[in-house]
Amino acid sequence: MRMTDIISKKRDGQELTFEDIKFFIEGYVNNKIPDYQMSAMLMAIYFKGLSNNETFNLTSLMSTSGQTIDLSSIKGIKIDKHSTGGVGDKTTLIVVPIVASLGVKVAKMSGRGLGHTGGTIDKLESIPGLKTDISRSDFFNIVNTVGASIISQSENIVPADKKIYALRDATSTVNSVPLIASSIMSKKIASGSDCILLDVKVGSGAFMKNLDDAFSISSLMVKIGEKFNKKTIALITNMDQPLGNAIGNFLEVIEACETLKGKGPSDLEDICIEISANMLHLANLGDIDHCKKLAYKSLHDKTAFLKLKEIVKAQGGDVSYLDYPQNFIKDITPYKILSKQSGYIKSINTEKCGLASMILGAGRETKESSIDYKSGIILHKKVGDFVNLNDSIATFYSKNIDKYKTAENIFLESIELSPEKPSKSPLIYAQVSNNGIIEF
Amino acid sequence: MRMTDIISKKRDGQELTFEDIKFFIEGYVNNKIPDYQMSAMLMAIYFKGLSNNETFNLTSLMSTSGQTIDLSSIKGIKIDKHSTGGVGDKTTLIVVPIVASLGVKVAKMSGRGLGHTGGTIDKLESIPGLKTDISRSDFFNIVNTVGASIISQSENIVPADKKIYALRDATSTVNSVPLIASSIMSKKIASGSDCILLDVKVGSGAFMKNLDDAFSISSLMVKIGEKFNKKTIALITNMDQPLGNAIGNFLEVIEACETLKGKGPSDLEDICIEISANMLHLANLGDIDHCKKLAYKSLHDKTAFLKLKEIVKAQGGDVSYLDYPQNFIKDITPYKILSKQSGYIKSINTEKCGLASMILGAGRETKESSIDYKSGIILHKKVGDFVNLNDSIATFYSKNIDKYKTAENIFLESIELSPEKPSKSPLIYAQVSNNGIIEF
Repeated sequence: MRMTDIISKKRDGQELTFEDIKFFIEGYVNNKIPDYQMSAMLMAIYFKGLSNNETFNLTSLMSTSGQTIDLSSIKGIKIDKHSTGGVGDKTTLIVVPIVASLGVKVAKMSGRGLGHTGGTIDKLESIPGLKTDISRSDFFNIVNTVGASIISQSENIVPADKKIYALRDATSTVNSVPLIASSIMSKKIASGSDCILLDVKVGSGAFMKNLDDAFSISSLMVKIGEKFNKKTIALITNMDQPLGNAIGNFLEVIEACETLKGKGPSDLEDICIEISANMLHLANLGDIDHCKKLAYKSLHDKTAFLKLKEIVKAQGGDVSYLDYPQNFIKDITPYKILSKQSGYIKSINTEKCGLASMILGAGRETKESSIDYKSGIILHKKVGDFVNLNDSIATFYSKNIDKYKTAENIFLESIELSPEKPSKSPLIYAQVSNNGIIEF
Repeated sequence: MRMTDIISKKRDGQELTFEDIKFFIEGYVNNKIPDYQMSAMLMAIYFKGLSNNETFNLTSLMSTSGQTIDLSSIKGIKIDKHSTGGVGDKTTLIVVPIVASLGVKVAKMSGRGLGHTGGTIDKLESIPGLKTDISRSDFFNIVNTVGASIISQSENIVPADKKIYALRDATSTVNSVPLIASSIMSKKIASGSDCILLDVKVGSGAFMKNLDDAFSISSLMVKIGEKFNKKTIALITNMDQPLGNAIGNFLEVIEACETLKGKGPSDLEDICIEISANMLHLANLGDIDHCKKLAYKSLHDKTAFLKLKEIVKAQGGDVSYLDYPQNFIKDITPYKILSKQSGYIKSINTEKCGLASMILGAGRETKESSIDYKSGIILHKKVGDFVNLNDSIATFYSKNIDKYKTAENIFLESIELSPEKPSKSPLIYAQVSNNGIIEF
């Protein structure tokens, strides 16, 4: 078997066999296939796509390319949740305690942020003392006793995907439906849960900019999940503006706590109830409407907030940061952003907004950058709101006050005003499951 | 400027600017652009093609990526000739002395063989004493005094093409019309001649297997030549069977000498006359018919043979090997190949035939392989000939007589017999010039 022949086969639109894919995935992980052959293969896949069978085989081979997690020692149904990434997306901090408070186990591995998007692990680590790098046995123990734990992804999980993703990033081959779907699903399958809820973000702040791609990727990921006997639902959700009002790690923890105390922004609460309900439904707690009621109750009677405190405490975090979070940003000198014009906010370029937050210290420009946990942006106005000249539209937080001006310029560029009130776009576009697509 | 953006641009079918191409060609030669980004770019070009402007810019930037040859110190019109490679293709050894004997200068750089095809430099080096690695001033001096010289390609000529070609070979991106055309033409342009004759081979023994590709590549190369003010003609010629009867370095030198003494196989003589006539026409010696007469006379009155001896002598070669070449293969124990059936030879898989010759020692399996100069195959029957059971169809020559059996099996597989006489296919399909295409 020669790699050039397998590249030619894909290039010419023929279907690759399991053995073909095994040859280059194993060879690439073992450094027997060089980067330059793999990148030619990835570009050929970009143009010629992968059949469902090829995608299943690729996912399977990537998922078993390193360690896999066996969750059988954890009692009950285990559910995983994945978001394709956005700005202000703190839903994991809210939905995990909701579903765990209702008896569904969550043994979750999460990632760190890069560029304009944040990562759940960074958000958690903004709580002093909290550890995300804990032993497998402590992790299982916390899930068994508390009901949920969120740790950072092990270096040994799906090494094939790690290596291929880095190469795709450097060779303009990221944006391929089967490559995205198999990358995400290989990690979820290796992580060992029984069910998977996918939050596929679409819009100016998401990796996916159009709805068609989101539908294709969602359908394919659901098919992959079912193929591997994982009950899977994908929700396609709006990332045309930041989710909630807070952007930045500890600022998002504050907002998550507010939401779990029943005082969060309505878009954030609504999406968290929807995601939680779908997770509970996957875990056989009833139909979606019933599960929505369960989730709503857990959030509004603060059972879920107490569950978050339990999880944080079990992982070593200082829970006083959850009870009185506002006390801990008093050392920051905030900076108010005033509107230079009046009008309705027509759109927010969410990627730019994320970049402004990154400049303030909330994100990483490169993998090596360090994070200023308390930095970020609080939005006071969102799409559809009217602003007068000199109204405060946002407040910036940063230790590094000389970054305020640069971030302000980028942030203001992200806001588009209009004399007319814009039409409202949906928060959730559709639910995709093995029963088909339900548009909202 | 970022390489990923340039890859995306080509991937999405946008036209690359001169600066884009300059960025990645210079970066690749200077090891600033890694192989894996270049191979993704090459695969994107494979799928999206290159516009004529992009092809001209790529050719220009590759041709100036290293040393270029200034032939202005050589008097008169200088012409170059290039064959896309085949089996038994010894035309250079015949046409160069023909045109040089008629006053047209040839300052030619040639390559070595790899795989089933041979290279002119290997054929020349089968003549003891002959040097192909000579100084620039000696080279110019020989061309000025003798009229022609053939040397091995300098390492410093078109380094961009060398590096890119090796990568294309390893990433299944060889077979792209604009990449082939720019690769060939960048070398011809860097070599400094005024006119270029391209022999584009098509058929089972050629790199190009179909006539459509040959037409596309020929037209594009002629366009490139004209763009760089090089008068260019491409002849599309048949490589569905070996050219002439001899395959193997010194065996081909013998056949070239026989042809220059008027006793060569008719297919080889005919094609050499056609190529020579087109070269003479490019060098303003008259119309093609007139130039054919000039070439025919030079060949049949042995002026051209004397010119070959002059060239070989000037490069240090032992000319007794040209006068009595048969004397020098007497130390080899030949091996007769007998037909296992009777019938007309319907086809010869020329690539397989070349591989049989390589196994006998005439070619290189890898760049590091060494060559047995006197090994190879003499065909006694060609397509259209009738053979009886046990007729001798070929004779093998090798120092390594234990290779005979393996080579015989491959050789016999290459021969297809049929009870009916096959129809004759043309030796030359077409002439492509800036006046258009003339089909033969």
